[in-house]
Amino acid sequence: MASNKIIKIGIVGGTGYTGSELLRLLAQHPQAELVTITSRKEAGLPLADMFPGLRGRVSIAFSEPDVDKLKRCDVVFFATPHGVAMEQAPALVEVGVKVIDLAADFRLRDPALFTQWYKMEHSALGLLEESVYGLPEVNRERIRGARVIGLPGCYPTSVQLGFAPLMQPDLIDMIDTSLLIADCASGVSGAGRKAEVHTLLPEASDNFKAYGVSGHRHQPEIKQGLEAMAGRPVGLVFTPHLVPMIRGIHSTLYARLKPAGLGVDFQAAYERHFAGEPFVDVMPFGSTPETRSVRGSNFLRIALHRPPGADVLIILVVEDNLVKGASGQAVQVMNIMFDLPETMGLLQLPVSP
Amino acid sequence: MASNKIIKIGIVGGTGYTGSELLRLLAQHPQAELVTITSRKEAGLPLADMFPGLRGRVSIAFSEPDVDKLKRCDVVFFATPHGVAMEQAPALVEVGVKVIDLAADFRLRDPALFTQWYKMEHSALGLLEESVYGLPEVNRERIRGARVIGLPGCYPTSVQLGFAPLMQPDLIDMIDTSLLIADCASGVSGAGRKAEVHTLLPEASDNFKAYGVSGHRHQPEIKQGLEAMAGRPVGLVFTPHLVPMIRGIHSTLYARLKPAGLGVDFQAAYERHFAGEPFVDVMPFGSTPETRSVRGSNFLRIALHRPPGADVLIILVVEDNLVKGASGQAVQVMNIMFDLPETMGLLQLPVSP
Amino acid sequence: MASNKIIKIGIVGGTGYTGSELLRLLAQHPQAELVTITSRKEAGLPLADMFPGLRGRVSIAFSEPDVDKLKRCDVVFFATPHGVAMEQAPALVEVGVKVIDLAADFRLRDPALFTQWYKMEHSALGLLEESVYGLPEVNRERIRGARVIGLPGCYPTSVQLGFAPLMQPDLIDMIDTSLLIADCASGVSGAGRKAEVHTLLPEASDNFKAYGVSGHRHQPEIKQGLEAMAGRPVGLVFTPHLVPMIRGIHSTLYARLKPAGLGVDFQAAYERHFAGEPFVDVMPFGSTPETRSVRGSNFLRIALHRPPGADVLIILVVEDNLVKGASGQAVQVMNIMFDLPETMGLLQLPVSP
Amino acid sequence: MASNKIIKIGIVGGTGYTGSELLRLLAQHPQAELVTITSRKEAGLPLADMFPGLRGRVSIAFSEPDVDKLKRCDVVFFATPHGVAMEQAPALVEVGVKVIDLAADFRLRDPALFTQWYKMEHSALGLLEESVYGLPEVNRERIRGARVIGLPGCYPTSVQLGFAPLMQPDLIDMIDTSLLIADCASGVSGAGRKAEVHTLLPEASDNFKAYGVSGHRHQPEIKQGLEAMAGRPVGLVFTPHLVPMIRGIHSTLYARLKPAGLGVDFQAAYERHFAGEPFVDVMPFGSTPETRSVRGSNFLRIALHRPPGADVLIILVVEDNLVKGASGQAVQVMNIMFDLPETMGLLQLPVSP
Repeated sequence: MASNKIIKIGIVGGTGYTGSELLRLLAQHPQAELVTITSRKEAGLPLADMFPGLRGRVSIAFSEPDVDKLKRCDVVFFATPHGVAMEQAPALVEVGVKVIDLAADFRLRDPALFTQWYKMEHSALGLLEESVYGLPEVNRERIRGARVIGLPGCYPTSVQLGFAPLMQPDLIDMIDTSLLIADCASGVSGAGRKAEVHTLLPEASDNFKAYGVSGHRHQPEIKQGLEAMAGRPVGLVFTPHLVPMIRGIHSTLYARLKPAGLGVDFQAAYERHFAGEPFVDVMPFGSTPETRSVRGSNFLRIALHRPPGADVLIILVVEDNLVKGASGQAVQVMNIMFDLPETMGLLQLPVSP
Repeated sequence: MASNKIIKIGIVGGTGYTGSELLRLLAQHPQAELVTITSRKEAGLPLADMFPGLRGRVSIAFSEPDVDKLKRCDVVFFATPHGVAMEQAPALVEVGVKVIDLAADFRLRDPALFTQWYKMEHSALGLLEESVYGLPEVNRERIRGARVIGLPGCYPTSVQLGFAPLMQPDLIDMIDTSLLIADCASGVSGAGRKAEVHTLLPEASDNFKAYGVSGHRHQPEIKQGLEAMAGRPVGLVFTPHLVPMIRGIHSTLYARLKPAGLGVDFQAAYERHFAGEPFVDVMPFGSTPETRSVRGSNFLRIALHRPPGADVLIILVVEDNLVKGASGQAVQVMNIMFDLPETMGLLQLPVSP
Repeated sequence: MASNKIIKIGIVGGTGYTGSELLRLLAQHPQAELVTITSRKEAGLPLADMFPGLRGRVSIAFSEPDVDKLKRCDVVFFATPHGVAMEQAPALVEVGVKVIDLAADFRLRDPALFTQWYKMEHSALGLLEESVYGLPEVNRERIRGARVIGLPGCYPTSVQLGFAPLMQPDLIDMIDTSLLIADCASGVSGAGRKAEVHTLLPEASDNFKAYGVSGHRHQPEIKQGLEAMAGRPVGLVFTPHLVPMIRGIHSTLYARLKPAGLGVDFQAAYERHFAGEPFVDVMPFGSTPETRSVRGSNFLRIALHRPPGADVLIILVVEDNLVKGASGQAVQVMNIMFDLPETMGLLQLPVSP
Repeated sequence: MASNKIIKIGIVGGTGYTGSELLRLLAQHPQAELVTITSRKEAGLPLADMFPGLRGRVSIAFSEPDVDKLKRCDVVFFATPHGVAMEQAPALVEVGVKVIDLAADFRLRDPALFTQWYKMEHSALGLLEESVYGLPEVNRERIRGARVIGLPGCYPTSVQLGFAPLMQPDLIDMIDTSLLIADCASGVSGAGRKAEVHTLLPEASDNFKAYGVSGHRHQPEIKQGLEAMAGRPVGLVFTPHLVPMIRGIHSTLYARLKPAGLGVDFQAAYERHFAGEPFVDVMPFGSTPETRSVRGSNFLRIALHRPPGADVLIILVVEDNLVKGASGQAVQVMNIMFDLPETMGLLQLPVSP
C-alpha cells in the first residue's frame, strides 16, 4: 500500500525549462511539498514572477544555496548545468537525502567518457559507481533502492525505449546490431533557457536543420544503454535535428533485419515487452505518432513500420522532452524511490491542440 | 458540503476543438462520467482514434445521435455548430436534463439580433427567455438554478471580464462609455477544426491580420453584456486579429477617462472587484500578461496601464480561448449547477513553455 | 548568346502553391510574358485578389480553360492535380507548344508504376515515352530538346541530387547500394493549398510526425532516378516527416560504406561533381545547412558528414520545396529549353530571417 | 535621367537583422557596390559564414573599423546600436560622405527628448539640426539634398504613413486629434538579433503579449512626426505587441471622427494622397491586409474601415519591419539621394506563402 507521507523536496537550480517543468508537476503532486529552491542569481525572486503560470499556486521565492536546508529534505533534484550535482551530492547522500540529477553527472558509467564529452573531471567517483540510471522501464528495481539517480537525457529516453525490445535475448539476433540509426528531431526547449542567438525565434522558427551530426553527447549515453541491455557491442549513428516547435521529441529508428528476422512479429513482441507499463503506449502497427499527442504529459508512444521492399524495421517514438524526457521522468523516479504509486501526479492528459 | 454524486454527461458534437477540450477536462474531473458522445459523421469511431492524446483514458466511441440516451444524462453539452442546441434542448430540458450550449443559440437575448448575425430564426424562444448567460463571475447565482446555459463566446469572456469593474455604479461615470475599444487577438484554434484554406499552416503562420473589422458576431454579444452590467447604453468597437499561435486570446481594452476618473485608483477597484474569484488573476499594475501564462488552464489574467500623457485606461486580458473561453468555463458552470466546488477538475497549471 | 525573345507563357491551374510561386517568379523574369492562366473554379477572379502579394504587378485574371489560347503560347505549365497534363498535353505538343508538368504525369517511366501509385491509367503513353525528367543537374542536355517535361517532385529533387555523386561509376562500388536511407522533412506547403484538417495551423504547428512511412509516391520516383544514374538496382527506404514550417525540405541521407569506401574523399568528389552548377552549393565538410538559408530561392545546399565510429556517410541537403523543389526548377528548365541563360530570373537571394 | 554610376557603400555594424537585410538588398541592387562592412567583434569573418544565404554572392568579410576606408565611400549606413552614428558621422559628412543611420541618433529633433528616451547625451547637435528624417513619402524633397538621414523606426513608418492623410489641412479638423490610438503588432525580428531569453523560440512562439505599454521610444517619434505634418499638437497612445512570427508589422489605428467627419470619403482622400507612391498600396475599402502580403518586400499596404455603429475610422497598415520598416527604406532613401530611380533594387515581390 502506498504511504501517505509528504515528501519534502529541494530543488537546486530551477530557472531553466526542466526546473520550471518540475515545479509545474510537483505543484500538482498530492504528496510533494516544495521546501526550498535555490538559485544564486535569482535569490529573493518569487518563482511566480519568473514563471507567471505558477501565480497563486507556488508562493515561495528562489533562495541562496543553503546546504543545511537541503539536508532537511527527503529528496533533492538538481536542475543545474552539468558538474554541479557531483559536487553537492555526496554531502546530501551522506545524511540520507536522495539525489536525482537531471543533468549528466551520473549518466555515463565510465568517468573517462564523461570527461571526454563534458570536458571536466568527475569529482564523485564513488557515488557515480553506485548511482543508478533513472529509466524506470529498464531499471525499475534498481531505482527503488538507489541513493543517487542519473536521469537519462531527453533523446536517450526515446531512443533506448524505442530499441529496448530489440535488445532482448529473443530478438537481438534478428537484427544487424552493427549499425542502428537514430534519426531524431527535438523542439527548441531541448536547448534550454539560455540566451543564445541560434535559438531566437527569428533564427529557429520556419527552419529545420541537423546539428551535432559529427558528435553529440547523447550518442555515448544511448550506446551505453543499448549495450547494457543487449549484453554486447552495438553500433549507433545518432543524428539530432532542431524543429521549430517548443516541446517534443520524435525519433525515427532504423534497424536492419537479418534473414532470421524477416518473419518475426515485432508488433506482438513490443506489446508484450511494454505490457503493464503505465507510460508507454505501443500504438497499432503502421501508426504515425505525433509529438502533440504527448504534449505536456509523461506518455511516450511507439509505432512500428516495415517499409515496403526493404529488410528494415522502422520504429517511431514520441515523447515530451520536458516531461518523459526530463522532469516527468524525475517525478516518476521519485515515486518509485518513495514507494508511491508510480503514476502519482503524472496522469495529466496531453494538451492538444 | 459538496456532494459525491457522479454527474452523468452527454456531449452532442465533440469532433471540434471545444469538444476535444471538453473531453480532456472531463476525463480528469473526479465526479464526471461521460455516458455518450454523438456525432452522426463519426459514429463508431473510438474517440482516441481522432484524438490520440486520449488513448488509454477514454475508451468510448462516437455514437449515432440518440435522444433517449441523452435523456438519461444529468447534463448535455452542445459542442455543435450554431442552431443545433435550440432544436434539441427543449426535449432534454423537459425531462430535467440540464443543457449547456457552447455555441451561440442562447447568447443573445434578442432573437432578432440572433437572426441578424447568425442568419437563422430562433426556434426555442421560450428556452431563450429563461436561459442564463454562463459567465460565472457575473452571473453566478443565476447559473446555479438555470436549466439552460448559453455559454459566452471566447472573445466576449475576456472583454466583458476586462471591462466589468468599470461597468459598476462607482466607476461607470469615470469613463467615456460612448466609445470603448476592444482590440483583440486570437490563436487560430478559435476558428475551429474546419478544413478551410485561410487557417492552413502555410496561410496563417508567420502572418498577422485583422478580420471581421466591419462586423463580428461577438460585438453585439459583448455590447449586450456590458450594457446589462452598466444599466445603460455603451458604445463598443471590437477589432479581432488572427495570431499565428494555437491557443490564447489577448485583449487590449481602451477606456477614455473623464476628468472625474483621472485620480481614481483603478487597480484597487479591480482587485476588490475580483477578490475571491478562483480563476481571475489581477496582476500588479503595469504588468504585461502573456497568453502562454494561461495555456491549457482555466485562468484569466488582467493587468492595468495608464499610458503616459493620455487620459486613457488600458486593460490587458489573457485567457486560453479553449478553456476559460469555452470548455473550461463550461465545466466551471457545470460545477456551479451541480453544487460541486467551482474549481473541481479545473486546477491544472498552465503548460509553459 | 542568349536570345532576347519574349517567351509567351500559359499556366493551367495556378491556384495552389506551385502555381502562385510560378507567378511570383515569372513576374520577375525579364523575358517571360504571362499570356493566360486558367482555372475553371476561379475564372474571372483577378490573380491579385487571391494572392495580394501580386497587387500592382500582375493584372490579369484567371480565365476559363481555352485550348486555343494555350496553343498560342510558347510553353504551358501545368500546376494542376495529377492526371490533367496527360489529357491536355498531346494537343499542345502537336502544335509545337512546349509542356512542363509540375504534377506527376510524366515522372514515372513505367505506366504500370504510375497506375499503381496514382490510381489512374496513363492516357498519353506516347508522350510519356518521349518525355524528359526535368532535373537539369542530371538531364540538362535532354531537357534542351524536349517537348514534354515531367518535373521532379520536391523530395525527389533533394534526394536524387544528394545521392547523385555516389551513383557515378567511380563511387558506386564504394557504398552498399542494397539499402540507402532518405530521412526527409518538409514544410507544410508541400501538402498543397487544399483545405484539410491535418494541415490546419492548430493541428500542424508545434508538432512533428512522420507520414507515408509504409509507402509514399516519391519512393518509386527517387528509386527510378537513382537506378538510372547507377545503372543497377538500388534499395531505398524513404521516410518523410512534416515540419511546422511553411517552406523548406531537409533530407538526411545515409549510405553505408563498403570497406573500399572508407578512405575515399567524398567531399572532393561532391565538389567535382557539382562544379559549375549554378544552383548547387556544396558546403564545407561537416556543415549543417538550414532550410532558411535557401528560403525563397532556387539554391540547394549539400553538406557531408562522417559520424564517428561508423562506416557511414551522411549527406544533408536543403532546398525550398516550392522553388528548387517545384516552380523555380520549372523556370530553370524553361530557360534551358528556350536557350536563355539558365539562371535568368532565378537569382533572388534567400529571405532570412 | 538616372545616372549609371556605381554607388560605393560602407556599412558600420551589420551583424544584426537590419544589417543582414541591407546586405541582401544591396547585393541585388544593380548600381551598388559594397566596399566595406565593419564589425569589431566579427572582423575577419566572411559575411557568408554568418549569413549562409549570401554564400556565392557576397564574398567580402567583416573588417575592423577603418575610418579611412569609410571616407572613400559615397554613403555609409549605420546598422549599429544607438549612439554610434552620432560619434562617427561628423568626420564622414565633413569629407562629403552621405550618412544614413538606421538607429535612433537622428530621429528625434529635440536632443532632450533623445536623452530622456535613449539615456545618453547627443554628441552631434549640429548634424542633428541639419539631419533629415528619412520617410520618403513625407520628406522626399528634403531627403534629396540631405547629408545625414535619420531613418524612421519600424513602427513609426507604419503609423505615420497610416495617419498621414488625416494630418493634412483638409482632413485634420474632421478627427479628434486629442487621442489617436495606434495598436500595433510586430514580428520578433523587431527585437533584433541579440541573445535574450524573452525572444527565444520557446518563450516567444505560441504566445502573444503587449510590451512597453507604459512607455516606448517610438511613441515620441511618431508623435513628433504627426505633429510636424499636422502643424499642431496631437495626442497619441501607442501600444506595441509581440507576435510569434519572424517579420512583419501590423498597425490598427483608431481615429475618432468629429461630426464634420462623418460624411467624408476617406477612401478617396487616401487614394489621392498616395497616388503615384511606388511603395504604398491603398487597398479597396474594407480590406484586411496581411503581413505576409508584404513579406520580404518594400511595399506597405493600407486599408480603411468604418466599424458599424461608431464614429470611428480604423486604418489597417502592414509592412515588413526589416524592409519598408528599415533596410528597404534605407535603400529607397539612398536611391533618392543619388538621383537613381526610387524603386531601383527594391521591386522584389513578396514571398508568400
